Amino acid sequence: MVDLEAARLDRVFGALADPTRRALVERLAAEEGLSVSALARPFSMSLPAVMKHLDVLEGAGLIARQKSGRTVSCRLVAEPMEDAMGWLARYARFWSESLDRLAAELEAKA
Amino acid sequence: MVDLEAARLDRVFGALADPTRRALVERLAAEEGLSVSALARPFSMSLPAVMKHLDVLEGAGLIARQKSGRTVSCRLVAEPMEDAMGWLARYARFWSESLDRLAAELEAKA
Repeated sequence: MVDLEAARLDRVFGALADPTRRALVERLAAEEGLSVSALARPFSMSLPAVMKHLDVLEGAGLIARQKSGRTVSCRLVAEPMEDAMGWLARYARFWSESLDRLAAELEAKA
Repeated sequence: MVDLEAARLDRVFGALADPTRRALVERLAAEEGLSVSALARPFSMSLPAVMKHLDVLEGAGLIARQKSGRTVSCRLVAEPMEDAMGWLARYARFWSESLDRLAAELEAKA
């Protein structure tokens, strides 16, 4: 169970470790059900290269593809990002602590 | 500027896409200033393998190393995780929306 969750986090963090894949997520968040070719249009890369990125996103459970006739459309599946955010949130006390410390230092100087 | 930020996010997400590296972050969050050998102890891998993971974490700005005599100690630098969490937080409305939808469906059935 723990290993399955770990593998899922690996895939989500790994999928988001690329600017093209993050841009694809952003696009799908703004516009639902885009076709693969519409998604690929703004990028200066080949359609197969974009499709490889979509494969990685799909492997991480971050997008779903649906075929209708000849068109494959994609939609965002945001839920796996919740786990990733939950993992990161555990460390929020560290950066808020350092903000508190900074604020205290600035106050002491004033 | 945007590219620098993107590269930083790439490195942070990439660094966290591995269970050993996430475990190292967890350990350093619990205990500050651990030596590299103390950090390596619980893992069933060689010291050089653990050091490679520490290199990746350091490259992402997530840990800092300090040498004192013969001992190198590591501490967590959590701030880069704040950017990653900020990026993910933009999509929180999607998973809360689907929770709302689920709740509404359950209510309609009750």
